Amino acid sequence: MQVAILTVGDELLAGETENTNASWLARQLAERGASVARILVVPDDADTIATYVREWAAEFDAVLVTGGLGGTHDDVTMDGVAAAFGRDAVVDADALEAVTESARAFADANPDVVDEYDLDLDLEAWARMPEGARMLDNPAGLAQGCAVGTVYVLPGVPEEMRATFEGVAGEFSGDAVSETVYTPAPEGALVATLAELRDRFDVVVGSYPAPRGTPNRVKVSGSDPKTVRAAIDWLEDRVETVPPPESDRRPGDA
Amino acid sequence: MQVAILTVGDELLAGETENTNASWLARQLAERGASVARILVVPDDADTIATYVREWAAEFDAVLVTGGLGGTHDDVTMDGVAAAFGRDAVVDADALEAVTESARAFADANPDVVDEYDLDLDLEAWARMPEGARMLDNPAGLAQGCAVGTVYVLPGVPEEMRATFEGVAGEFSGDAVSETVYTPAPEGALVATLAELRDRFDVVVGSYPAPRGTPNRVKVSGSDPKTVRAAIDWLEDRVETVPPPESDRRPGDA
Repeated sequence: MQVAILTVGDELLAGETENTNASWLARQLAERGASVARILVVPDDADTIATYVREWAAEFDAVLVTGGLGGTHDDVTMDGVAAAFGRDAVVDADALEAVTESARAFADANPDVVDEYDLDLDLEAWARMPEGARMLDNPAGLAQGCAVGTVYVLPGVPEEMRATFEGVAGEFSGDAVSETVYTPAPEGALVATLAELRDRFDVVVGSYPAPRGTPNRVKVSGSDPKTVRAAIDWLEDRVETVPPPESDRRPGDA
Repeated sequence: MQVAILTVGDELLAGETENTNASWLARQLAERGASVARILVVPDDADTIATYVREWAAEFDAVLVTGGLGGTHDDVTMDGVAAAFGRDAVVDADALEAVTESARAFADANPDVVDEYDLDLDLEAWARMPEGARMLDNPAGLAQGCAVGTVYVLPGVPEEMRATFEGVAGEFSGDAVSETVYTPAPEGALVATLAELRDRFDVVVGSYPAPRGTPNRVKVSGSDPKTVRAAIDWLEDRVETVPPPESDRRPGDA
């Protein structure tokens, strides 16, 4: 399964925020065996969003859009996605109910804020989505997500994005597997060995120099776990390997 | 000046690495008044790189490409950029000299590594770039960058990318300015005020909720510093503002 990730937001284009939403989603997809083909940041502009959603919905198996949901003027993602499908953005009855309930819970929990700021939310603005879309519940905030065919729209606030994605995570899958080894050998000493590895096995080989010094990292990916394992065995017979450096260790690493 | 950033690398698409190169470049460009229109991650695939470089060189004032330089099989960026311009990738004489010099310096500094790994670098592979390109010196490593017209190609190792960019930073400029204020008001209470702000002033207004609670952030951007300042003054008369939270402070913040 090939997936494109489209993140919306001027603040990402200004370099003010690392795009941790994209890398988090990419890891979730990789864990499920799906492959990420593109990660793109675009401004808060409905036409640009519409252009990429239309093009990528046709080109890839799924598109994940995140950011630009909500009730302020710069939240134009729903309009962009609607335009990509030639639909209008309308108030969704289920979403309006969810937003109303969330707003009521917020008001109950924060009576001072509601009083002080004369908070009068335009709940309908938070409940808009492309006509006929399937609402995706956001258990962590006001902005509800949606899916239109294979295009999934998620909120941009990280905890809301994660909570909304969890509800549809099961819809993403694939047969991509990978294994990674670390080596103290300089990248320049690996060239011939890695070329032969690619000739012998039906795998993709990535070679990543360490930011400073070694160990360098070699990642072998493919669609057949046995082939990937055999390629790693072949490589380990020819190249000295070491455990991952502390900074690269993840839960589950040996 | 509108700039697109194209970062190359399977490891970014797997979510293994945050794209700090893109956000660093975006901040450098913003500081110089240029606007970043796109940030895209593509795989180590020459055809995909060529497609975006060709399209974006026509659409934007400059394209910054980073990653996928060097001498291993997955370093295909120079081939992709060359293809975008209908040129061949060739060994550049100046680049070969720089690479040879860097390799000699590395060997002098690391005689054990060179002995142990029988290091025999294919220096020409590191010195390839599109025919007729202008070499961009990389004072921090082997992989030399290049510029073809308004397309700038930089190494992917962060310290090498930064060092190479410094050499051409003066070629990026623009008249974008912005100011940011923070407010304890919930985003929902700002909608009408921000709408009026946009009606009254020729500015772009971004409204960014805090990850949890407040203060929320409002960013006002435009091409005329006086207009941006007037818009901020108008806003500060109507909305309570507070100093930036510790996590958002940068050198130079008041």
